[in-house]
Formats: sequence, C-alpha cells, structure tokens
Amino acid sequence: MEIVERISELRKIVAGEKKKGARIALVPTMGYLHRGHLTLVKQAKQDGNYVVMSIFVNPLQFGPNEDFARYPRDLERDAKLAEEAGVDLIFHPSVEEMYPQQNRTTVQVSELGDALCGLSRPTHFRGVTTVVSKLFHIVQPDRAYFGQKDFQQYLIIRQMVRDLNFPLEVIPVPIVREEDGLALSSRNVFLAPEQRQEAVVLSKSLIEAEKLIKQGERRVDRIEAYIRNKITQESSGEIDYVEVRSAENLVKPEVINESVVIALAVKFGTTRLIDNCIVEV
Amino acid sequence: MEIVERISELRKIVAGEKKKGARIALVPTMGYLHRGHLTLVKQAKQDGNYVVMSIFVNPLQFGPNEDFARYPRDLERDAKLAEEAGVDLIFHPSVEEMYPQQNRTTVQVSELGDALCGLSRPTHFRGVTTVVSKLFHIVQPDRAYFGQKDFQQYLIIRQMVRDLNFPLEVIPVPIVREEDGLALSSRNVFLAPEQRQEAVVLSKSLIEAEKLIKQGERRVDRIEAYIRNKITQESSGEIDYVEVRSAENLVKPEVINESVVIALAVKFGTTRLIDNCIVEV
Repeated sequence: MEIVERISELRKIVAGEKKKGARIALVPTMGYLHRGHLTLVKQAKQDGNYVVMSIFVNPLQFGPNEDFARYPRDLERDAKLAEEAGVDLIFHPSVEEMYPQQNRTTVQVSELGDALCGLSRPTHFRGVTTVVSKLFHIVQPDRAYFGQKDFQQYLIIRQMVRDLNFPLEVIPVPIVREEDGLALSSRNVFLAPEQRQEAVVLSKSLIEAEKLIKQGERRVDRIEAYIRNKITQESSGEIDYVEVRSAENLVKPEVINESVVIALAVKFGTTRLIDNCIVEV
Repeated sequence: MEIVERISELRKIVAGEKKKGARIALVPTMGYLHRGHLTLVKQAKQDGNYVVMSIFVNPLQFGPNEDFARYPRDLERDAKLAEEAGVDLIFHPSVEEMYPQQNRTTVQVSELGDALCGLSRPTHFRGVTTVVSKLFHIVQPDRAYFGQKDFQQYLIIRQMVRDLNFPLEVIPVPIVREEDGLALSSRNVFLAPEQRQEAVVLSKSLIEAEKLIKQGERRVDRIEAYIRNKITQESSGEIDYVEVRSAENLVKPEVINESVVIALAVKFGTTRLIDNCIVEV
C-alpha cells in the first residue's frame, strides 16, 4: 500500500492502474478510521476495485465554532488499519495541496441540504460537496463508497452526481454499530464513560420507533415525540433534531406511506452524534 | 462527422476514441456558429485533438427576461460549418437529456462573477459554470476551448477548473472580428442595419483606449470616460458597463500598472453586445 500526498503523483498512479484495466474505487474519509470505514473498504474490495482511500480533514466543511482543530487524527494507525482492510493507496494531501489558492468555487445542492444537519451546520454540506467534487476530479474513480450513517450526505452526493453527470457510481453502505448499538463514529472517542453509556439510547429509540411503524403507526409527530421522550428521559443528551423524512428526497411526509428515514442528532456535552434508520413501508 | 443527442452514446464514442489514444477537445457552444466558433475548432484541430463540439442553448444561463426562446438556432447549417472546420462529433442534447429531473445542484464561482456581466445578469454565470461542469463530466475532454470575447466567462471557467481540480486544460482563443472590427457574435443577426453600422463604435473605442494606455494614460476613470463619451456620441447604444479591470482577477485597479482588460456591454435596441480588449502594460 502506498501513501501519497501529491495530487500529481496520485493521478499518475491511478492512470497507470486504469491502463492495466483496473476499476478504481474511492473511499473518502477524514481518517481516524473505525470499522465503519473499513466496511466501506471491504465492500469496495469485494466489488473488485483498486481502492483509493482519501484521508483529509476538510476545513471547508467545518463551521467556525466546530471541531476542525480537535478532530482526531492518527495517520500511522489509519495506515495500518487501511492496509489490513485492503486499501491499495492512501491519498493524504495537506490543506495547502487541496486549497493552494483562495478557493472561490463551491458546489451546492439545494433543498436536500437545507433540513436536518443543514440547519445547525449551514455551510457544512457545501463544504462536503465541494471537496468531494475535488476528490472525484483528482481520483477519477469509477465508484465511490459512502456510509449511510451520514444518510443526508449520501443523498446529497447522489443528487450532485446525477445533476452534474459525474461519470461514476455512488454506492451506499449500511451503518456499522458497536455491540450495544451505538453507530460507529470517529467522534465517539470524545464521549466520557457515562456519555458513552447514555448514547446507546439513540439506536435503541430508533429500533423502537421502527417497530412502532412496522406495527402500523403512521403519524410522523407520534414517532418523533416517542424518540424525543425516550432520549430526554434516559439520557443527558441535548436534542438537535429528531425527524421522520422521505428516504428518497428528505421531504417531510404528511403520514408515513413511503420509505422513510428516521434521523436524529443529539449532543452529549460538546460531542454531537448522529444516527438514523431507514424504514421500508 | 457524427451528430449525437444522447449522453450514453456520446460517452461510448469518446471512450472508444480515448482507447485508440486520441486526445479529446471540447468546444462548448450554443450553436448558430460563426467564424469565432470555427476558429476555436481549428485551434483544437491544430493541437491534434479529436474535437467534440457541443451545441446546446442552456436555459439555466438565461435570465427570465432574456432571449432564451428567440436565441437563434439552425442545426443543419451548424453541422455543415462544423464539419468543414474539422469537428469530429457534434453533441446536441435536448433540454430533457441535460436536465431530466429537477436540477438542484449548482456550481458557483464567487467574486469573479459578481462584476461586469454578473451585475445585469445575476444568475448567468452560475448557469454557465453548472452546464460547463456537466459537459466536462459528460465529454471528459483533455482540453476545452473558450473564446476571449466572453473574457469574464473564460476567467470564471479557468478559476472553476483550478479550484475544483477538473482534469483538463482550459485554452483561451482570441476574439475574431468582422472586417470593420465588430466582434463576431450569434446575436449580431438581431441588429438592424443602422445598429449594425453603429456597433462598430465598440471595437473602435477599445482600440483608441488601448492607444491612450500605450501612450501613457494610467487613470482608469479617464479611459472609461473616453469610451463612454465616444459610444454615446457616435451611436444610439445604451451602455450597460464600461470597465477597466485586472486581466488576472477582474479587480478594479487604482491605476493601470498591470495587464488589464477593458470590457464593455452595450445594448442596441434589445440586442446586448459585449466586447473587450486586453492591454499589457
């Protein structure tokens, strides 16, 4: 496995692999890998690709009061895990390599990015779509793999790829969880032990809400209220949002008569966690 | 020469050419070709490329009160001219092919697009950068050719390509003019005979302004006033703007001590013409 910091070098290697007939997969990450990322890699490997993993903590997608500076980083550990999982090449550019001059160009997806995480993080998705566009142009993958934990991000990237005709396939990969149900996240390391225990309420409330829908509940407000109550009663978590939305376009349904995503964001101290669950009806 | 309307077909043909080792050039146009467009083609051909010309009148870059509906179209004539000039393939998609679903994604370049044509056409450049991004992803050219008549557009595209790491080269081609100096434009056909005669004042005033700078005039307001006066006195044209700007980034200089573009837009009746001149100092 190679680790490359320069765009020009990355391009040369990828072009060589393409010439040999390889299909290129991109797994974009911000590093500090966990089993969620590694599942993306394994999926990409299983699909027969040459797997490029980007590790780049992208300043553009952090708000001014967010955790860009303290976002966890550990390249040595990441490289070991990535290699074991089957990554062929890590692309690990510096901020200067990615943004050598003042960046004036942004890629923006309207509507899909306005709700949910877009409300408390108004410039976040613009930062994501812009850096993902750059990575797509740098790596020129045939396929790109995104985890469904960031379900809104996945929908936005899918929309961007369709709207702008990016010549690649976006592949979603299901959430990976700890044994007790907590969705894996690089930010979990920030949780104090009590918070870590309390945070299990997120996945638990999603599972119970799913059960309610499967049992016939169709009222959006009932589902949302159920989850809110449970989180408030069983944890110190501060709710950012709990929302039932169309799993296709994030529009809020009148009643639940299509596949929906139940999505939530909750803060434990300064650590903001997200989770979601797709319910087919 | 082939004419292709479908994205999938275009991609197949281009992939085949690439496999044979061809370098792909894109000449994006809105059709109704004139010698300006054909000069782009000849340049692209001379550089040894397989030349794809797109002909697409892009609704996204026209404002609600602009001339999208009446923009001149004549594919048969265009095809003949394109073939003679050396185009290998015309990509002529329908609006539905380019925008099959509601388009939610836009690509936007800040600052460069705010002045000059961006003032009277506030959504124009966003429409241009978005459709050009789409065309870049569809055709995947190695090089793309843009005329310098739309100098602001050229700078914006160049900035977009740099910022987003599009894997291609943007090549500017000088303005082509009628014998009396009028810059070629598909919109020239809308000029009444008197307007056509009057419109020569645009290039004349640019030439004289260039001469003033070469003779030592360094005051921006003097140059702009000179051109405004000349146009007002010698024509019925209604000035949209006359501006001296940095040829690198369109910032207005205090005094002229770097290469500048003198750019102008003037309306003759309902027909808006643009022209410009780069002056190296």
